[in-house]
Amino acid sequence: MSSSGYEQTERTTPTRYRERASYDRATVHAILDDGYVCHLGFVRDGAPVVLPTLYGRVGERLYIHGSTGSRPLRAAGEAHEPGMPVCVTVTHVDGLVLARSAFNHTLNYRSVVIQGTARPVTDAEELTTALDALVDQAVPGRSADCRPATRKEVAATAVLRVDLAEVSAKVRNAPPADDAADAALPHWSGVVPVTTVYGAPVPAPGQDPGAPVPAYLTGR
Amino acid sequence: MSSSGYEQTERTTPTRYRERASYDRATVHAILDDGYVCHLGFVRDGAPVVLPTLYGRVGERLYIHGSTGSRPLRAAGEAHEPGMPVCVTVTHVDGLVLARSAFNHTLNYRSVVIQGTARPVTDAEELTTALDALVDQAVPGRSADCRPATRKEVAATAVLRVDLAEVSAKVRNAPPADDAADAALPHWSGVVPVTTVYGAPVPAPGQDPGAPVPAYLTGR
Repeated sequence: MSSSGYEQTERTTPTRYRERASYDRATVHAILDDGYVCHLGFVRDGAPVVLPTLYGRVGERLYIHGSTGSRPLRAAGEAHEPGMPVCVTVTHVDGLVLARSAFNHTLNYRSVVIQGTARPVTDAEELTTALDALVDQAVPGRSADCRPATRKEVAATAVLRVDLAEVSAKVRNAPPADDAADAALPHWSGVVPVTTVYGAPVPAPGQDPGAPVPAYLTGR
Repeated sequence: MSSSGYEQTERTTPTRYRERASYDRATVHAILDDGYVCHLGFVRDGAPVVLPTLYGRVGERLYIHGSTGSRPLRAAGEAHEPGMPVCVTVTHVDGLVLARSAFNHTLNYRSVVIQGTARPVTDAEELTTALDALVDQAVPGRSADCRPATRKEVAATAVLRVDLAEVSAKVRNAPPADDAADAALPHWSGVVPVTTVYGAPVPAPGQDPGAPVPAYLTGR
């Protein structure tokens, strides 16, 4: 494995649009760091289950919040020593791509698919690191400005770790790929950009409405 | 099964935050109709795979675009007659919920999890309906304003159908749930709204830049 890229394997090789695939670490990290919600896939009673949940990246480790469906996850963790096979997928939609033909319609997007093994984080120090990462992934800087978890709260939180090893990114960022024969058709062709926007923070009931909004929120 | 709701099953009953779960058809339909990208989970060689792809809803049927990993999907479709077990999940993030404690941080979100069996659509008429739905889900009205797929293009497109039967929604839409004991802490508490925004359409190279943008795009 080179230091700049993940090793390509049979199951991280896409069957279509291979030119969109990337195994570059910087590309993968940037896509992961631009989000905080993943779709976690696992197998329960032979059937696939896909649940959205929060994640935080620390180097080559992805920490996944186990509150969504923690019971099946914990059960699976115990049953599948030393870990549970998972697939973790993170997707950002960047544009609606309207071609002149229905067939060539697509999206501009960035996605990462991680295949691996999820293990419950049990080491107290690693758990603290992971919980901070889960908070900071969504709101960078926030973990230093809230009440840390008590021992009881830490015990009530299930965090899974997946090491980044079998990983691929897929990116499309281009205008429509119209067929040459369609060029003269009257239909509008182009891209509608899609972005995620963070609105003005809304103070909680009971929060002093005049309290200053922290700098890590106003910068968004 | 009542006409207004999906039947609740063991695997559509969440293990945590049950009060957030809903089996109401109108709730499920509204969440599905507010998106066009799902995360499709299936099992390959005993391991979970989660891929992002486009979908379109027609009544109680969800059509899923098979271009992402169509080869494994097709193979699985053949191997698992009469269909392949899948889990299809659609998630919208509506807000970052910052509580005074790290532990109470969460998201406002709407999600739908569909468990079921995916079957390739082979009937020509249904395939046309499905392809139109896939285009119109992302851009309502677009399927009537582009070149329809040729017979060759239709043959090259794999579409899977999943019937909406074992379905649940999960919704959180509330301020932070701060512990009473945390109320006096100085940390800012509240919600940062998250929305998806569609930018000004960007004409493709070769498209007359003066060509009017269709009404179904300007209304976004």
